[in-house]
Amino acid sequence: MKKLIYTLFFVLISVVANGQAKYVFYFIGDGMGVNQVNGTEMYYAELQNGRIGVEPLLFTQFPVATMATTFSATNSVTDSAAAGTALSTGKKTYNNAISVGEDKKPMETIAEKAKKAGKKVGIATSVSVDHATPAAFYAHQPNRNMYYEIALDLPKANFDFYAGGGFLKPTKTHDKKDAPSIFPIFEEAGYTVARGYNDYKAKADKAQKMILIQEEGKNPGCLPYAIDQEEDDLTLAQITESAIDFLKKGKDKGFFLMVEGGKIDWATHGNDAATVFNEIKDMDAAVKVAYEFYKKHPKETLIVITADHETGGIVLGSGRYDLNLKALQYQKKSTDGLSKRISELRKSKNNKVTWEEMKEFLGQEMGFWKEVPISWKQERELRDEFEESFVKNKVVFAESMYSKSEPIAARAKEIINDIAMINWANGGHSAGYVPVFVIGAGSHLFGNKIDNTEIPQRIAKAAGYK
Amino acid sequence: MKKLIYTLFFVLISVVANGQAKYVFYFIGDGMGVNQVNGTEMYYAELQNGRIGVEPLLFTQFPVATMATTFSATNSVTDSAAAGTALSTGKKTYNNAISVGEDKKPMETIAEKAKKAGKKVGIATSVSVDHATPAAFYAHQPNRNMYYEIALDLPKANFDFYAGGGFLKPTKTHDKKDAPSIFPIFEEAGYTVARGYNDYKAKADKAQKMILIQEEGKNPGCLPYAIDQEEDDLTLAQITESAIDFLKKGKDKGFFLMVEGGKIDWATHGNDAATVFNEIKDMDAAVKVAYEFYKKHPKETLIVITADHETGGIVLGSGRYDLNLKALQYQKKSTDGLSKRISELRKSKNNKVTWEEMKEFLGQEMGFWKEVPISWKQERELRDEFEESFVKNKVVFAESMYSKSEPIAARAKEIINDIAMINWANGGHSAGYVPVFVIGAGSHLFGNKIDNTEIPQRIAKAAGYK
Repeated sequence: MKKLIYTLFFVLISVVANGQAKYVFYFIGDGMGVNQVNGTEMYYAELQNGRIGVEPLLFTQFPVATMATTFSATNSVTDSAAAGTALSTGKKTYNNAISVGEDKKPMETIAEKAKKAGKKVGIATSVSVDHATPAAFYAHQPNRNMYYEIALDLPKANFDFYAGGGFLKPTKTHDKKDAPSIFPIFEEAGYTVARGYNDYKAKADKAQKMILIQEEGKNPGCLPYAIDQEEDDLTLAQITESAIDFLKKGKDKGFFLMVEGGKIDWATHGNDAATVFNEIKDMDAAVKVAYEFYKKHPKETLIVITADHETGGIVLGSGRYDLNLKALQYQKKSTDGLSKRISELRKSKNNKVTWEEMKEFLGQEMGFWKEVPISWKQERELRDEFEESFVKNKVVFAESMYSKSEPIAARAKEIINDIAMINWANGGHSAGYVPVFVIGAGSHLFGNKIDNTEIPQRIAKAAGYK
Repeated sequence: MKKLIYTLFFVLISVVANGQAKYVFYFIGDGMGVNQVNGTEMYYAELQNGRIGVEPLLFTQFPVATMATTFSATNSVTDSAAAGTALSTGKKTYNNAISVGEDKKPMETIAEKAKKAGKKVGIATSVSVDHATPAAFYAHQPNRNMYYEIALDLPKANFDFYAGGGFLKPTKTHDKKDAPSIFPIFEEAGYTVARGYNDYKAKADKAQKMILIQEEGKNPGCLPYAIDQEEDDLTLAQITESAIDFLKKGKDKGFFLMVEGGKIDWATHGNDAATVFNEIKDMDAAVKVAYEFYKKHPKETLIVITADHETGGIVLGSGRYDLNLKALQYQKKSTDGLSKRISELRKSKNNKVTWEEMKEFLGQEMGFWKEVPISWKQERELRDEFEESFVKNKVVFAESMYSKSEPIAARAKEIINDIAMINWANGGHSAGYVPVFVIGAGSHLFGNKIDNTEIPQRIAKAAGYK
């Protein structure tokens, strides 16, 4: 009798609680370590009259939350290529590799497995479609910088939907030779290329396979940062909505969709806290779109949120047992955006900007001297930079992985971190844990602390991919 | 029929999978943020010929692992008192409070609830019994520094077992008045005071209630760091073993046992990585004792491992996409221990130490110039400190929260962090997530990301405390 009850119990568990995941959403916040998430929630709490605590994002409320390690086969601290490969193939490789092993041979990705299982497949990102994380799902190349070669792998994978900012090297091979544009190649392979959200909506119905990128003239490297977004910009939420729409049309055999919040990493490389928190909130808006879908198909949908690695070594605290994250709200633009505005100011006034004008400008852009009091030491630092770069006209741009900043912009960012009591270790990656949040069919397969390679293995199990 | 199956299903779940937690172990690693744990596991992997990856601790392999937030009612970054109160009462309070609310009124602790439910109760730590974390389980005082008053609360709580290094102010009130020694007060209240492991074993049988501290002459503030431990030192594992033994004797109605790894925090305040990793490993050895008990009573035992807050802002990486944790293995003692050895050297040689002798000494104690090559810049820094503190005889001790170091010891620690590629933000606490690892009866109540206040609430639910 006891044996019977046990058997019945386990059968019931697998049938009632854990239907197969016909629809899989796999969100990857590039560079989103555990405390980037924590910081975001504490920031949005502080926006409510300085409230101490957390204002929860949607995805952090999922019933399963755990942590994952991220080291690569060759480095204790991974890059996005090896980490993307781990998250897509379930195997470790060397830094820089795009879903090839240490022997340079291709390793099958979970997206390819999904395709083989008859699912529709979508790969989406807020950076370029050929960037390391999305590439690791459809391409196999020995080096992440082989953007043209990666793009050529896109039609070979033959997935149904790709989206992102654009393509970095559409006509130039890795060894810098001119090459046929990838766009006609995509079209010959049966892809419709839509430029912008409206173009997607006009073309989606008739399209067999879709590549959704930004309008002509926009930076193909990425969508704008959420904090810099303007009305007509394509958003990660729109991409996610389009992906669901496209993958769901026709005969519904289920789908696998990877969505990367790629610019969390860029902002963390730049140690730009307000931009990071806005970027994570923006990915949460994309998760919300997936969650709405989940609510309609709760027993057949799995949503997994994770990250490829931690970037910047963020620490929420500067030793003073407090935070002042609300000071970040007066930062109007990313450090990149601020830098651009400073360069424009410099140009428009032929460098003849007074310190009073600069103070006014920084007051508007960062809240300094207005909502955000700054110390004499901080003022002096800004003034010193002003003297160098405006009065003496010596402009040495501060460089981080994905940006170059006017010296005043770089200094303003350091000062606002100091005021907010946020510490950053450096401009690179760390081996810090990344979070894993899970809801839906197969979420019971998650729970303990895992290595990043186990994440796609468990998703494959939940979805029945072989 | 479907409804019947569902009902059967949920009944089965609660009966088969989730017996009540008759025995509760609640481990608190003071200052043990998520990446202190990650660093420990990556360190022990590197000890295996430099292997990249993790060598798992026991507790990280528990089936449920998640993260918790730690902010207090008054500070985004908590102290150990408010955090201990949150972990014991399930309620937020102000920094410095010992299980009283913002109105200074006592709040009931989970240990008191366990007692009320007829369980035996034990409170154990590697620091002093009157320190913030253990105190938050049995005392109610408006200020964590009221050590004498906290100690007086111990017999009032009337728990069965207390253990730790000793007591900080056994005869002096908070307002610095002489007062009757707490030890006769304990004995009058029916406690047996055992000094050391052997004394415990000799006295346990006949004792009704037990206070286990270190032998006379040892530092009452704490057990020695694991890295500094000597043969006859009392260990946290021995304390845990003694606690189980004591709480299990007589009529077995179950128990609640809190065990704090208190010096993880001290070592993180000092940014002393090797000492932190050894200290976490040492707490894991105590968890192993609990786990052996769990294996004998798997359906009735709950083990929860968490931390009160993150300390030091540890970042595993210095921007170079690598770690070199194995370099830490040549550090023979804690920075405190090293400092003490330097002071002894200074004294024994009447300050007449040559640079060659100091190099030899640092080679032995830290591996410098031997197993751990150091750069000219690093050598120069050590030599500069040597010139100041030995040749010119100007000794300015470097101070952190719980220690003062000889300048050369402080510099050696910074250099070994640099070589290991570990970054520390500062010597205070941060708002970083703490980990939560759970196994056993009631572990199904954990899974999502939570606030620290929810931890005792869920334990109480698992154990049926009202």
